[in-house]
Amino acid sequence: MSKNMLNTNVITQIGIIVKDVEKTSQMFADFFGVDKPEAFWTDAADKAQTEYKGSSTKARARLAFFDMGSLQLELIQPDENPSTWREFLDEKGEGVHHIAFEVKGLFEKIKVLENQNMPLVQKGEFDGGRYAYMDTSHNLKVILELLEID
Amino acid sequence: MSKNMLNTNVITQIGIIVKDVEKTSQMFADFFGVDKPEAFWTDAADKAQTEYKGSSTKARARLAFFDMGSLQLELIQPDENPSTWREFLDEKGEGVHHIAFEVKGLFEKIKVLENQNMPLVQKGEFDGGRYAYMDTSHNLKVILELLEID
Repeated sequence: MSKNMLNTNVITQIGIIVKDVEKTSQMFADFFGVDKPEAFWTDAADKAQTEYKGSSTKARARLAFFDMGSLQLELIQPDENPSTWREFLDEKGEGVHHIAFEVKGLFEKIKVLENQNMPLVQKGEFDGGRYAYMDTSHNLKVILELLEID
Repeated sequence: MSKNMLNTNVITQIGIIVKDVEKTSQMFADFFGVDKPEAFWTDAADKAQTEYKGSSTKARARLAFFDMGSLQLELIQPDENPSTWREFLDEKGEGVHHIAFEVKGLFEKIKVLENQNMPLVQKGEFDGGRYAYMDTSHNLKVILELLEID
């Protein structure tokens, strides 16, 4: 039995790629009998400092969050610029893109995973924290998002 | 605000379709520093009474479960017979197939969803309960599994 690479096994979020966040958000709201959450665009490149496969990208996504008891469900509508969101939509269509874990020491964790042949796919900043998507799709069959909350 | 169609919003399981449950299970065990769980085949048709798109099917899957804090992660290796698992693997490849909710009154819930244009895809029995996969992929962009535990 090896060490837990993230120091956590608690999934805090499931991210679903959608074409139209307003429409799917309304469907979820109706289905679960809750108010439709306000969707919002991720920050522009200067603030988000988004990098996709090692290069800066102007990519943004329109997000909506649902509180599903033990975790959050995140709906993600990609724009047309290159991103892991856009790539997933183009290659796989709408569906579950990632599961997320909250970690401490995000950049160290990225290194640990990269050393184990799980490369960083995309990273960025947001108000109050930062995220990294790791390419764990070849071994874990799903992308992991690491979230660091300040 | 409408009524919650399932009377719950707690996601109890994430189901991932894989080609080789032993291999992926070992990857998860190594990643999260836990013992590899014992994988097992779902019951044969006579016991599981599996129905896929309204017809009996001999389909089985080899399953492994991980306890991820707030929910279970289920790895599912389909056999070659027709099932929602096999269909997903053939059409989308490996990845997240469903999110699951525990419900009471499974057959009533199936009717409620079918009346809202979300058809039953597959159902079956297992020791201690039964399940139904609902085709919510056109509106919620992910298949829902309803689980009834006796």
